[in-house]
Amino acid sequence: MNDLKKRNLTMLTDFYELTMANGYFLNGKGDDITQFDMFFRTIPDNGGFAIMAGVEQLSQYLENLKFTEEDIEYLRGRGFGEDFLDYLKNFDFKCDIYCVPEGTPIFPREPIVTVRGPAIQAQFIETMLLLAINHQSLIATKANRLVRAAQGRAIMEFGSRRAQGFDGAVYGARASYIGGCAGTACTISDREFGVPALGTMAHSWVQLFDTELDAFCAYAKAYPNECTLLVDTYDVLKSGVPNAIEAFKREVLPRGFRPKGIRIDSGDITYLSRKARKMLDDAGFDDVKIIASNSLDEYIIRDMLRQGAQVDSFGVGERLITASSTPVFGGVYKLVAVENDGVMMPKIKLSENVAKVTTPGAKNLWRLYDNETGKAIADLITLADEVIDDSQPYELFDPDVTWKRKTVENYTARPLLQPLFIKGKCVYDYPELKEIRDYCAQQVETLWDEVKRFENPHNYYVDMSQALWDMKNEMINKYKPR
Amino acid sequence: MNDLKKRNLTMLTDFYELTMANGYFLNGKGDDITQFDMFFRTIPDNGGFAIMAGVEQLSQYLENLKFTEEDIEYLRGRGFGEDFLDYLKNFDFKCDIYCVPEGTPIFPREPIVTVRGPAIQAQFIETMLLLAINHQSLIATKANRLVRAAQGRAIMEFGSRRAQGFDGAVYGARASYIGGCAGTACTISDREFGVPALGTMAHSWVQLFDTELDAFCAYAKAYPNECTLLVDTYDVLKSGVPNAIEAFKREVLPRGFRPKGIRIDSGDITYLSRKARKMLDDAGFDDVKIIASNSLDEYIIRDMLRQGAQVDSFGVGERLITASSTPVFGGVYKLVAVENDGVMMPKIKLSENVAKVTTPGAKNLWRLYDNETGKAIADLITLADEVIDDSQPYELFDPDVTWKRKTVENYTARPLLQPLFIKGKCVYDYPELKEIRDYCAQQVETLWDEVKRFENPHNYYVDMSQALWDMKNEMINKYKPR
Repeated sequence: MNDLKKRNLTMLTDFYELTMANGYFLNGKGDDITQFDMFFRTIPDNGGFAIMAGVEQLSQYLENLKFTEEDIEYLRGRGFGEDFLDYLKNFDFKCDIYCVPEGTPIFPREPIVTVRGPAIQAQFIETMLLLAINHQSLIATKANRLVRAAQGRAIMEFGSRRAQGFDGAVYGARASYIGGCAGTACTISDREFGVPALGTMAHSWVQLFDTELDAFCAYAKAYPNECTLLVDTYDVLKSGVPNAIEAFKREVLPRGFRPKGIRIDSGDITYLSRKARKMLDDAGFDDVKIIASNSLDEYIIRDMLRQGAQVDSFGVGERLITASSTPVFGGVYKLVAVENDGVMMPKIKLSENVAKVTTPGAKNLWRLYDNETGKAIADLITLADEVIDDSQPYELFDPDVTWKRKTVENYTARPLLQPLFIKGKCVYDYPELKEIRDYCAQQVETLWDEVKRFENPHNYYVDMSQALWDMKNEMINKYKPR
Repeated sequence: MNDLKKRNLTMLTDFYELTMANGYFLNGKGDDITQFDMFFRTIPDNGGFAIMAGVEQLSQYLENLKFTEEDIEYLRGRGFGEDFLDYLKNFDFKCDIYCVPEGTPIFPREPIVTVRGPAIQAQFIETMLLLAINHQSLIATKANRLVRAAQGRAIMEFGSRRAQGFDGAVYGARASYIGGCAGTACTISDREFGVPALGTMAHSWVQLFDTELDAFCAYAKAYPNECTLLVDTYDVLKSGVPNAIEAFKREVLPRGFRPKGIRIDSGDITYLSRKARKMLDDAGFDDVKIIASNSLDEYIIRDMLRQGAQVDSFGVGERLITASSTPVFGGVYKLVAVENDGVMMPKIKLSENVAKVTTPGAKNLWRLYDNETGKAIADLITLADEVIDDSQPYELFDPDVTWKRKTVENYTARPLLQPLFIKGKCVYDYPELKEIRDYCAQQVETLWDEVKRFENPHNYYVDMSQALWDMKNEMINKYKPR
C-alpha cells in the first residue's frame, strides 16, 4: 500500500554523508558510538510553538534502508573502495532512535529526535531524517495556525497543484490533517492515509455547458446527495447564487435530498458571503454551507470572521501547502556525544552566536503539566539518566538568566522522547492518523492562550536541569577560545 | 531506472477532477473535445522572466497514466458507478499536448502548455500537469537568478534537508541544474539525472576527532585528490585555515596532489574569505578554491561580490530549494475552447480583474528574434492556424494599449510550442539534462539586460496577433454582464 516502502530513496542523501561515512570507515571510526540530536532554532511565522510531524515516514524510510545493487554500482562509479562497498552491502542498521510523537507541540532548542549508534550509520541518516521531519512539521505547524484562526470552522487543504513536488502534495495533505485540517482535495492522501478528500467542480465545468444553470442542474442531477456548486464563474450574486438556488430546487429537493453548499472562489468574500447567506436563507436553504477558497491565510481568515463573513468552511491552497510566509522549517542535526572507552563523552560546538551553541551530551526531554489547570508549565531538558520525580517540588530556572527561578509543585512530568528504533529495529506502534490529529488538538489545548497568539506570543519555557546546565557551562569554559 | 515510472500517482489528483470526470461521463460529455491552456500570471520575485521546467516528469507521468485495480477499488468505495469505473479501467489517453521546451524563458499570460482532447481526460490531468510544471519552473527560475548574481562563479544546490518533501529535493536539484547550477549535494539526482553531486564534510566530522588538525589530516589522507576542508567549526582564521594549510602540506602535497578547497559556512563571509584568500595565497595555495555556504540568496551573493568577497563557489540551501522569497509558481489551467459540431468554439472566463480574463481559443506562441543582434524582440500569441511569415514585416501592438504599435523587420519567428503527445502517444525526444541546461543559458542570453534586472525589470512584450485580439474582444463584448 504505502508508497515509501516501494521506493528506494537510499541515495537521497547529501553526498557528504557518503564521503564522511567512507572516511570514518577508512579511519577505523565507523563503529564508534555517536549521539546526535535533531532540534530547531526558530518557529515559523514568529509563532509560539510548532507541531511535530513526519515521524511515520522517517520510520518507514529507516525500516527499508538498504543499499541495492544499483546503489552500490553507482557508488563504485563514484570511486568508493570495495571494502566500504562491502560494508554498505551488508548494512545492518543498529541505531537507537527516540523522538517526540507526531502531533506534539514542540519548541526551539529542545531535542525532538535523538539518534545513538555507529558513526557511519548515525551520520548517514541525517539528510532523510531532517527532510522528513522538517517538511511535515512545517506544514502541520501552518495548518494549526489556520485551524486556530477559523475558530471551529473547517479548514480544507486545497493546494496540491502548487505544492513543491509530488510528495509535497501527498505528505503535505497528511501533515495538514495532523495540524487540524478537516480534509484535503488530494485524493491519494485519502487512499493512503485516510485524510478525507473532497471536491466538486472547477470553473471549467460551468464553462463546458451552454449556461451556468445547465451546468448546475447537470451537476445536481449527478450528485443530488453531495451537491456543492461553484458560484463565481460569471457573477456571484446576480447569476451564481440565483442559479444555484434554482438548481437545488429543480434537481436536489425532488430527489429527496438537501443541497450541501456553494463555493465562492473570488471577489470580496466577506461581502459576498453575507449577501449569499441571506439569499440562501430567504430561499429556505439556511442549512446550505458556504465555502470560501481564494488566496487565504490565517490573517485573512481572522479578519474575515471579525468582519462577519458567513463562511462555514475555508479551502486553503498555496499558502498552506508551501507554508508560503515562512516556507522553511530549520531543523538541524548535531553531534552531541561520542563514546570513548565505553563512556559517552559530550561534544559541544561553540559559536559567536550564543543561540547557536549546541547543548552537549545524551539528554532527555520532559513536559511539566500543572495538575490543577492541565496546562503545560515548561519543558525541561535533562541528562539522559536523570529522572524527574513529580511527587517532589522542582526548581526551574531560565538557562540564560539563571537568577530567574521558580519552584513548581503539584505537577505531572511526562517524558516526551519515545522509542522509535531500538538496536536498529522499529518499535514504533504507528497510531492511526486520526488519533494523531486528536492528540495534537488535545495537546495544543494544554498551551496557554498567550503561547497561541499570532503576534508576539509568550515565550514558552524550555529549561535545563541544573546538572545539564553545569555540564554545558563547564564545556563552554573548557573549549572557549583562549 | 526512473523513479516516476515505478510510482502510481494516478490518484494524486484533486478530488474534483474525479467528480467532474464522472459528471461529464454521466452527461454524455466525456468525449467532447476540449482545449485547455496552462499559463501563469506573475513572475516570482518580481523578476523579468521565468524558466520552463518539469516537462520530462509530466511526460513520464502521462506515459504511465492508468487506473490500477487498487485505484478502481478505492473509487468504488467512494461511490463512483461501475460504468464510469469501466471507462477508467480502459482509460486510453488520446490528448494532444504541446509545450514550451524545458529551459526556455517564459512570460506571463502566454500558453506554456496546451492540451486538446476528450473532456474527461483533458480535465483529469490538470492537477499533475500544474504540479509538475509549477514546482520545477519555480526552482529553475530561482536558480537562474542565483547563477546570474554569481557572475560566472559556480552555484551549488545544497538544500535537500530543507526541501518540501522528498521529491522537492530530487526534482528541485534537477530544476536547479536546468537553471544553471553547477551541481548539487543531492546524490540521487546525480544517479537519476546526471546532476553532478558533491560534498565533503560536516562539522560532525571535525568534532569526531580529538583536534581539528587530526580531523583535517584524516580527511586529506582519505581524499588527497579531492580535498576540501570545512574551516569554521572552531574559528576560521585562528584555527580552521591554518590547520587546513598544515593538513594540505602534510597529507596532500606529499601524495602528489593539489588540495581543492576550503569551505566557510558561518560568520561574515566577505571578510573571512578575503583574509583566508590571503593566508592561502601566502602559503602557496593560490589555486585552492574558497566555497561559501551560509544562508545565501541572490541579493547576498551580489552584495558579497560587490564588496570583494573572494569566493569561487557558492552553496545555496533552503533559499533555493524552497525558493523561499516567493515559494509559489502560480500556473493555472483554463478551458479555452470546446468542439461543437466539429468546430472548436472559443470559451472565455471574464473577471472584474482585467488580468484574470482568459484569452480564448486554440492558440500558438511565437518568439521573434532580431536577426542582427540575436536578441528576443517579443513573444506573439496567435490563433492556432496562423503562420508568421518572417520574410515579411510584422506589425506588433500592445494588447492593452492598442495604439502602441511597432513594425519589425529582419527577424526570425520561432514557434515555441512543441508537440509532447499526439493522440495520447508521447512524441517527445527527451533531451539530455545537460543539453537543456545549455539551451537555457543560451536562451537567457537572448534576453536584453533590462529584462534580467532583479529590480524593476523591463516588461518583455507578450503581444497578440490582430486576429486573436479581435476574437477575444468580440467575446468580451458578447459575454460582458449587461
